[in-house]
Parts: sequence; C-alpha cells; structure tokens
Amino acid sequence: MRAIVIHAPRDLRIEERGIAEPGPGEVQIKLASGGICGSDLHYYQHGGFSTVRLKEPMILGHEVSGYIIRLGEGVEGLREGQLVAVSPSRPCGACRYCQEGLHNQCLNMRFYGSAMPFPHIQGAFSEILVADARQCVPADGLTTGEAAMAEPLAVTLHATRRLGSLLGKRVLVTGCGPIGILAILSARRAGAAEIVATDLSDFTLNVARQMGADRLINMAKTPDALNGYFNDKGYFDVLYECTGAEPAIKAGIQALRPRGLIAQVGLGGDMSLPMMALTAKELELRGSFRFHEEFATGVELMQKGLIDVKPLISQSLPIDQAMQAFELASDRQQTIKMQISFN
Amino acid sequence: MRAIVIHAPRDLRIEERGIAEPGPGEVQIKLASGGICGSDLHYYQHGGFSTVRLKEPMILGHEVSGYIIRLGEGVEGLREGQLVAVSPSRPCGACRYCQEGLHNQCLNMRFYGSAMPFPHIQGAFSEILVADARQCVPADGLTTGEAAMAEPLAVTLHATRRLGSLLGKRVLVTGCGPIGILAILSARRAGAAEIVATDLSDFTLNVARQMGADRLINMAKTPDALNGYFNDKGYFDVLYECTGAEPAIKAGIQALRPRGLIAQVGLGGDMSLPMMALTAKELELRGSFRFHEEFATGVELMQKGLIDVKPLISQSLPIDQAMQAFELASDRQQTIKMQISFN
Amino acid sequence: MRAIVIHAPRDLRIEERGIAEPGPGEVQIKLASGGICGSDLHYYQHGGFSTVRLKEPMILGHEVSGYIIRLGEGVEGLREGQLVAVSPSRPCGACRYCQEGLHNQCLNMRFYGSAMPFPHIQGAFSEILVADARQCVPADGLTTGEAAMAEPLAVTLHATRRLGSLLGKRVLVTGCGPIGILAILSARRAGAAEIVATDLSDFTLNVARQMGADRLINMAKTPDALNGYFNDKGYFDVLYECTGAEPAIKAGIQALRPRGLIAQVGLGGDMSLPMMALTAKELELRGSFRFHEEFATGVELMQKGLIDVKPLISQSLPIDQAMQAFELASDRQQTIKMQISFN
Amino acid sequence: MRAIVIHAPRDLRIEERGIAEPGPGEVQIKLASGGICGSDLHYYQHGGFSTVRLKEPMILGHEVSGYIIRLGEGVEGLREGQLVAVSPSRPCGACRYCQEGLHNQCLNMRFYGSAMPFPHIQGAFSEILVADARQCVPADGLTTGEAAMAEPLAVTLHATRRLGSLLGKRVLVTGCGPIGILAILSARRAGAAEIVATDLSDFTLNVARQMGADRLINMAKTPDALNGYFNDKGYFDVLYECTGAEPAIKAGIQALRPRGLIAQVGLGGDMSLPMMALTAKELELRGSFRFHEEFATGVELMQKGLIDVKPLISQSLPIDQAMQAFELASDRQQTIKMQISFN
Repeated sequence: MRAIVIHAPRDLRIEERGIAEPGPGEVQIKLASGGICGSDLHYYQHGGFSTVRLKEPMILGHEVSGYIIRLGEGVEGLREGQLVAVSPSRPCGACRYCQEGLHNQCLNMRFYGSAMPFPHIQGAFSEILVADARQCVPADGLTTGEAAMAEPLAVTLHATRRLGSLLGKRVLVTGCGPIGILAILSARRAGAAEIVATDLSDFTLNVARQMGADRLINMAKTPDALNGYFNDKGYFDVLYECTGAEPAIKAGIQALRPRGLIAQVGLGGDMSLPMMALTAKELELRGSFRFHEEFATGVELMQKGLIDVKPLISQSLPIDQAMQAFELASDRQQTIKMQISFN
Repeated sequence: MRAIVIHAPRDLRIEERGIAEPGPGEVQIKLASGGICGSDLHYYQHGGFSTVRLKEPMILGHEVSGYIIRLGEGVEGLREGQLVAVSPSRPCGACRYCQEGLHNQCLNMRFYGSAMPFPHIQGAFSEILVADARQCVPADGLTTGEAAMAEPLAVTLHATRRLGSLLGKRVLVTGCGPIGILAILSARRAGAAEIVATDLSDFTLNVARQMGADRLINMAKTPDALNGYFNDKGYFDVLYECTGAEPAIKAGIQALRPRGLIAQVGLGGDMSLPMMALTAKELELRGSFRFHEEFATGVELMQKGLIDVKPLISQSLPIDQAMQAFELASDRQQTIKMQISFN
Repeated sequence: MRAIVIHAPRDLRIEERGIAEPGPGEVQIKLASGGICGSDLHYYQHGGFSTVRLKEPMILGHEVSGYIIRLGEGVEGLREGQLVAVSPSRPCGACRYCQEGLHNQCLNMRFYGSAMPFPHIQGAFSEILVADARQCVPADGLTTGEAAMAEPLAVTLHATRRLGSLLGKRVLVTGCGPIGILAILSARRAGAAEIVATDLSDFTLNVARQMGADRLINMAKTPDALNGYFNDKGYFDVLYECTGAEPAIKAGIQALRPRGLIAQVGLGGDMSLPMMALTAKELELRGSFRFHEEFATGVELMQKGLIDVKPLISQSLPIDQAMQAFELASDRQQTIKMQISFN
Repeated sequence: MRAIVIHAPRDLRIEERGIAEPGPGEVQIKLASGGICGSDLHYYQHGGFSTVRLKEPMILGHEVSGYIIRLGEGVEGLREGQLVAVSPSRPCGACRYCQEGLHNQCLNMRFYGSAMPFPHIQGAFSEILVADARQCVPADGLTTGEAAMAEPLAVTLHATRRLGSLLGKRVLVTGCGPIGILAILSARRAGAAEIVATDLSDFTLNVARQMGADRLINMAKTPDALNGYFNDKGYFDVLYECTGAEPAIKAGIQALRPRGLIAQVGLGGDMSLPMMALTAKELELRGSFRFHEEFATGVELMQKGLIDVKPLISQSLPIDQAMQAFELASDRQQTIKMQISFN
C-alpha cells in the first residue's frame, strides 16, 4: 500500500509500505479521504514550524476518513464496510491530565503526523490504516469528504466550548482559512447573533459570506474598517483569533468590548500584545488547542444536518497527484480545504 | 380605546379606557398583537396562582407588539410607524440588583399584568399603549405575531443562558406548552445535539417534532419510555423543566447524568424532590425567571431567520373575541400559542 | 487482627480477621485512628438508610489514618513508618466519568464501608489494612486524629469548590454536626466574610462559634431568628445545607438572596422544596457528593496550619470500647466527632 | 486647606485650596492617611505613563481614609467623627457597563487622581475632602493607615475574584511591590495551598515571606530558579502577574500548568508573549483592572482580622514632607507602602 511521506521541504514522496494487521481493540481501515491541514503544509513548505522540525521521514496527515475492512479482536460498536471518521488524537488515558479529563493536554499524546517527539508520530495518509477502535466515529450518512472534516471541525467546536455560551453574542473572526470558516459555522451553531469576519483574500471572504458571516472585511483593502467598532471601549463579545498574526489580534483587542473573550486558535510565534488595553478592559485571552470529545460531536452535528461543511471542500485530488494537491492547498485565492482521495 | 380587563375568575371584560399621551422618553403605540400567557390564563381561570391573587380589576397581557404612533420628547432610535416588540419588564435600574446587572431581580419591578404588588401592575392588552422607549425593540421585517413572541422567547433564551454552553449537549425538555417548545428552539439554536421532549398531548408533541425535537415521549401513553435513559446514572446533560409538575422533574432527575443541569422554568407550587439522587449525582437545579437583555436578542435572532417561531402561533382572534381566545388558549389539543389581534 | 463488623442494627462485633499481604502497588498499614461518620451510625442504628440496606456483615469505617508497615512492590513516594491519611475512595480510573475527571461519580466505585453494591464494600476499621498506595497521602506532622479527619474535611472542601469563589461572601450553614462545622472552616478558609450557622444543639453551636462562625442560631429555641434575613429577597450568597432536613433548606431558601447558591451536602430522603421562591430568585441548588483531589488538599491545608480540625475531635476511645464509641457518637449534646483508637 | 499637587515631573507642590461644603448625599472628610500608589509615582517621576500624560496641574492620591466632619443632606448610615475608607472609584451607575454590573468599566468613570480625561480628575490628597456618601465605607476599629489600604487591597481582591476558586491551588506571584504582596494575602485568604513569589529585591521578598509566601525567588540572583517548575508542562494553577514586565510573564507562562490562569494586574506597555506555549497549554490570561464591590469587602475582611495589611505600611510621613515621601516610596530596598499623614 502507498503512503504520503515528507522527507524534507518540498521533498514529498509516495512510498510503498507494508500492511499492518489489526490487533485486539484495533480496526483496519481502507482510507477514503484526507484533508491537508496547515501543519501538513508547514512540513511540506518549511520542514516544520517554530521549534517543531522534521528530523526523519514522516507520513503526513491527520484529517482522515475511511471504510473499515477488518475488526480486531474484541471490537464492538463498529462493523466492516462502515464509513468512519478517524480521530488523530491518541491520549494515554492514564496521565494526570487525562485523569482530569484534559485529554488534549495528555503528557504522552501520540497525535498523527507530528514531528514534536522523536521518533516522530507517523501520520495517517496511507491507503491502509490500522487505528484503535476508539479513534473511530461511525460516519454513516456522510460523504467521505465530510467525515474527513470532523478533525478541523473539532478544533473550532473545542474553541467554541472554551468560550462558554455564545447565544446572542457578537463575534469577530480574524482569518478565514479553513479554521476561521469552521469557527464561523461553529459560532453560528452555538447561537451567535452577529458574526464579522476578516481576511486578506476576497475568495475566502466570499466563502465566509456563504457560511453565514454577516459582514466581511478585507484587511488588505480596507485596513481601517474595524475602527468603527472601537467606540465606547469596543463592540464584540468574542474574538476567534485564527491567524496567529500580530496585526489581527491587535485590531481584535481594540474591537472587543470590556470583559470580551478571545479564543486563540491560530498558532504563530511570539506576538507583541497591547497589554494596557487587554488589562484595562479586562479581556480574557484563552488558548485553545486541538480537541477531545468534540470530534464525535462534530460528526453528530454533521449527520443531523446542523453543520454543513461541504462548501468548504474546494477540491479533492487522487493520491498520485498529492504533490499538486499540496501546492494548491496553500493558494488562498482558490482553496479553502484541499483533500486527497485514497480510493 | 378598549382594554381587556380581568375582574374575577371567568369575569373578563372589554372596557373603554382613556388614551394617555407619551411623556418625555415615552412612545405611544397602536397595539397589534398580544399573546396569551399561562399566567394570563391563571388569572382568567383561577383569579391568580400560588399566593398571587387578584385584588382589583387588572388589564391583562404582557406579550405584545404594535406600531409607534407618536414619539415623546427626546426619544431617539425609533420612528413613527415602526413595528416594535414591547418588553413588559420595567426594572428600576437603581436598586442593588439592577446595579449588579440582575434586572430581572429588580426590587421595584413593574412587570405588565402582574397582581403581585398592590395596586396591581396593569397589563398591556389595550388598543393604545404608552410605554418607555427603552421597552421598545424595533421589529422591522417581522410579522406582528412574531414580534409579540419576543417575550416568551426571551424567557427560554434566558433559561438557555443560565445553562452555559449547550454545544453538542443532550437535552431533555419536560412539557411542550409554548415555553417548552421555545426551549426546544432555543436549545437547538444554542447547539444542542440531541433533544428529547415529553408532554401529555400528541398535538403539542407533534409541534415539538416540527420544531426539531429528535424524539417525543407522551408520558400519558408511555410513562416508562424515559426509563431507557436511566442506566449508568443517566443520560442527559441538561433538563429544561417547563411543567412545574412533580412527576416531570422526578423523572428528569433520574434521566440526567452526573453533574447534569436543570433549568427550572415551570412555575408550580412546592414539589417533593428526590434529594438523594440530586445530591449523589451532583446535579444543579437552577431557577430561571423572566429575562432582561434576552428580549432584544430574541428579536434579533428572529429577524435574522435564526429562530422561527411562526409555527407556534396557532391562531389569532380579534379583540372582541377575547373571551373565546382565552377559552381556546388552554386547550392543549389544538393550541400552542393563542394571540389576540388588536387591529 | 481485629475488625469492627456490623451484622445488624445494634449488632456490632469485634471480630478476628486474617492479615493480608500488600500486593504490587499496595501498602500494609497499621491503623491508628478511625472517625465514626454519620453513615456508620446509620448502619449501626438502623442497618442502613434510604434504599441502602445491610445484607451481609460488613466492616465499618472510612475515615482512617495509620502507619505504613510494609510497602508492596513498585510503591514509590511512601516509606515504612510514615503516617498516612487513607482515602476510602477507590474509583476505577477508566469509566467515562473517571475519564472526564469526575472520579467521585465513578461507575465502579468501591468506597470503603458501603452497603450499596452487593457483595458490600468492606470498610477500614481493622487493625491492619491493605490499601492502594495512591489512596495514601503522607500526613507527616499531623496527629493521627487529624489525619483521620482528612476524609470529612475533603467532603466540605469539595462542596466549597462546587460553590466557586467565596471571597467576601455571606454564608449560611444549616446543621452543625461534623460536616457543618467543617463547612464553616472550609468557607472561612475560602474567604467567606460572614458566616451564620444554625443547629438545634447549643453544644454544637458553641463549637461552631469557636471555629469562627460570626453568629449562631438555635432553631429549636429561636425558630424565627432567620427571618431577619428575608427582607429584600434575602441576604446570604451561599448556603451549605448540611442537615438533609426539609425545614432547614426551606428556611435557607428564604434567606438566600437572588442567584444565591446552595451546596446540598446533607443526605436525606425526598424533600418538599418551595419551588416558586427557588425559581423566582433564580437560586442554584448544587448537589455535592464525596470528593476526589480534595482529600490530598485537606491534608496539605492541615499540615500548613491553614485549617485546624483538632477542636472537632471530641473524644477517642480504644477499639475494645467501640460499642460505647458508637453510642456516644450520636449524642449531639457532647460529641462532634468521635474517633476510635486502634493503637 | 492644603493639597498635594503635581505640576510636572518632580514638580510636586503643597498648595492652599478652598474648602468645599458637602451637598446633598455628600460628606465632608478630614483626611487622615493617604497611600502613595505606583501611578502617583509615575506622575511624579515621569509626568504620566504610556499614553496617559499630565496636561494641567492635578491633585494626586486615591488611597485615602479620614474622619467625617459634616454630613450633607439626606446622608444615612454614616456619622460625624466616624473613620471611613474613601473609595476613589466614582462610576456613573447609568451607562451600559454600570447597568451590567461592570462598574469598573464605566464609560464615564471619574477615578481620583487620573490624567486620562481632560480636564483631569483631581485626586484626594487634600486636608479636607468632599466625597459622595456612597464612596465612604465605615472603618471603625481600623487604624487610619489600614483604612487607606482598602484601595490597593480591593485591587487584589478583585483580581482574586477574577480567578474563581483558589481553594487548594498553587499560586505564583510575580512582583512583590504593594500589589504583589496584597495578592499574596488575598490568595491565601481565598484558600491557596502554596504560594511562590518572585521579585528582584530581597527586602520586598522578606516581607512577602512574613505575609505567608511559601517560597521566595530573587530573579536577579537566581534567574533559573523557576525552571524547576517547568516539567510536565508546568506546575502552578494560577499566576498573579504584578510587574507588567515581559520577562516575568514569560517565565510565568512556562511555569503554569495546562489550563492555568493568569490575572494580569501589572500595567506596562506592549509585551511580547510566547503565544505557542499559551495556546498549546490553553492558558487563560485575564486582565484585572481596579475593583468595585471589593472595596467594601476589603474593609470588612480587615475589620474581622481576616486580612492584616499593617506589616505592609513601611512608613508614614506628614504632609509637609510629601516630597520626601514620594522619593522614598519608590525605594524597593526599604519601602513597600509609603503613606502620608494628613493629621
């Protein structure tokens, strides 16, 4: 079977690998769809990000769905032929944070396609995948592409939970990549009354509009458009910061009303923050990282038609065009989410 | 102009009253629609409820909308001819609870159509109403019937806020009168993943189904149907208790999982609660009473099409059929919300 | 070695039992002190409480401390000869509630001295006890009596956590048995500004005074003394309900201000609650049951001198006077906490 | 009567001013003690801070106590001759934030001794002060110096409330000026189990030790001493950031465990934050600014002996030595809190 392996920046190879058998509590999956995430792109373009650097070849990918082809011993609640969304998150369940219910903070996390520990944690972009049964959420009724969106959706659902009740709230979303747009969908699903979104690309802003944003601001074209929200100490109750870029959070802090909440979802390097405004307005900046139970929640919300992610999937290319898929994935003028088809 | 006045149980009269002029900060409104609430019905049927008793004639009604016909001095942000939803809630703004932001707990509250203090607070069912400008929320784009639903909707939005984030939660609603059904709409708007509703009437349960409930249980026909949710200490994360009736909350407590939340919205008399279960499962029973900022929130959510209350409005009768309207209003086999038309 | 075994109401026997060896991860403990809890008394006096009934002989006791005499294989962080407080709480760590961090809601809980499942979970009142190492919290510097108080203290620390910040709050405690008095200590430690305590016994109220309560009310002698707190919708921010008795919670609900919180700690049968007041004032009734991480917290707070429980320990009798200890334990005119000495 | 007026950096003058009479709802106060705050020092040393600059002469001071010498019309609950702590916070009570209970965010705030609006809000360092009755909290039983500490104490009590329950928590305090040390007292009062404090001065760290800190770290002498807390993603539950300095918050972020909370109390300029760590550990950075109801809370806690601020008051100099007081106030080798005596 084939897997998509990154060796070095721009050195992406499709390699043959052996097929593993499912052990007790595991399932063997024929992969269907795999979405390319921003972190996959960072490995592809730069060999990593921040202090996380590639030190050995690594299979990429952590947004995947597929069909179960074999059940390991003792697996219940799943069946052969079933479409499943596969969570890339594999916490140990035993460390202090897992025991506190903070599985996304697991001290022994083995998250697919991550170069953080060494040896690296191999990713999921392989035609045949063996996973723990508990990673698999039945996705009956979804397309394979939708099922592969459960992972990024879980990220924004988690961020939304971190923000408490959004019912009737005014929400600013900075950055309309896949995460920003999923933030719009999640905020709306959670009851936001008004959603304003910013980006530098009209293409992504247009998708944001289709996904329900009430107002779009192209910060490249109208950099002062947010200023109208700065009066009386600010306007928005909530900011989803999805860029990890300093100008975005700086403007967002000015546009937030006192006691406003920020979900910091975007991962960037160090940022210089206007601490006087943040402190005097008593804002709350809350880091939000990955997810846990929100993975299954996302699948359920999609199945019930309560969140529709299909318009985000810009294109799907077969595995042998993986290189092209990675190139197109970063083009913010035509792509929100690029997926690879493993069929 | 005419007003709908309750004198004693079943003694409802349509009386002529003088027309008041709007003072500074006030507006004069030509009433359009008025919904009949459970408390109106209690006055009509029993002359009150619990220790709240009618002691003098009182104009009924607190769910109203109308068109502004005159602006008092200094009123801004409203215009003649504009449809407004009129909040019946008039907190003083100065007492300790208002100053803490708990306006619904105002020590000097003058809520329309309430026999609690004496002299009673007269209600809003009159053809011409003078109200404070700040009671009025512009309702452009809504029908008059929808605008009159802002009040009961605010009750369930408030209850929903009291419950924190509902995103992905499993919700039980006991009682599918207007409040129960608005609870379903509110819970879904706030992101509930699964909603089960109970009632004793197939008619109301059928409306609940149209409003998005995933499963309906007629407790009169299948009293044991909730038992399937009792295993492993319970199933639901949240209960909207909308009956004020002991059997409903007792079953609900058994069906809630540990740390489950109850919004007690239904107003009944004393109830005997299974305190061992409530304590051992560490449930939280939270009273929810009226609303404040949620009134404007409700109007906005309806205007944006994020909540649709129209299917709840079963019928609208003209003011001269008010008696019949009150009779029909309590018929759970054919009425969810009965409104009176003042045009 | 000897153990204190309940066979039936008033049939308490001191019996010889075999000595177990510590397995891997376990320790063998020479018991030092054991406090008699209200539930122990219920078994002794009535053979159980509510639906929890004794069906076979059971060793009583779950408030214990002792000296480690042997370490099982692989135990770290403990040493022979060390005084430890032994937590009676043994959650599985693997069920859904444990994995959410709600260990006190464990579906497979094996809590010492509990007749809830059958076969019963044997208690800890035995001269030699084998326990899991993780049940043992080093108690260096404490007396054996203090160390045995870690368990009931954990109950009130847990209730206090359930109440959020108490800093500057006004607190009512109904019932001044051991739990009520530990609630006073815990509330004060958490920053309560004013504490009023009620009971029916001047003896316990006097201890409450020594423990820092600002005002004491003997509800048997001055049943109307709480009424002074009923004005303007109530006075207290927080109620620790430690009686499980209806009159106490009823008066407490009237004395609580809007949005006031109740920690329901007392375990009684069904209670009739004034739901109108609870709902209209938007109170929150939060069940509080046992504890988890608060057991170690309690030991630490005692070690640092931040909570002093010694004045609560009314008396300690040797194991061969166990019967007398159980008789005296329920005498609210002279006993707060009765302990048994196993030395 | 004399007042302490700042004209420009280092240009502090004692000037004669007219005596005002108390109007309705006001009281006339003979000032007793006035503490010098960091912001007073900034005006004295630099003519302001950040974008807040002195544009006209301004009476300094906002930490004051005094004796009532005359009551204006209609004042109740106060009496002539009574010692009061005078809150410098004068919110309007009517703006949207006041009506939400967020008085410290008042849009029309007139906080004593603040150059933020123009004309400036004059301060309280004058021998005779006329204040609103509601600014005055009876301080019977306190020394005048303690009463003047109510203001900075309120700042740290407010920060503590912003952090939720601290019971049993592990707390790091960066910066041991008056606010840092009051943070230690507040955290302990709220139930913190362990408090570690950092500063650059052994003198202030020594006071921190007397005030109950468990461990002191002089970051100038042992800059790596915090590193021991970096393992397993960090150690502390809570950080009171009282420096407004980048190195302090950077080290603090590393030492916080996942989901740790930061109360940002120190006011500095822009700071570069390690956003990757903050986001990945899901920390929460909460601005904390001034106070509202905590002013009265602080007085009450001091009166009951639950917080003792006396050891913080390093020295008190008479008004005619005001210049010297301002010089000494900034000497971190011998002064925590410098006060001026107006007797």
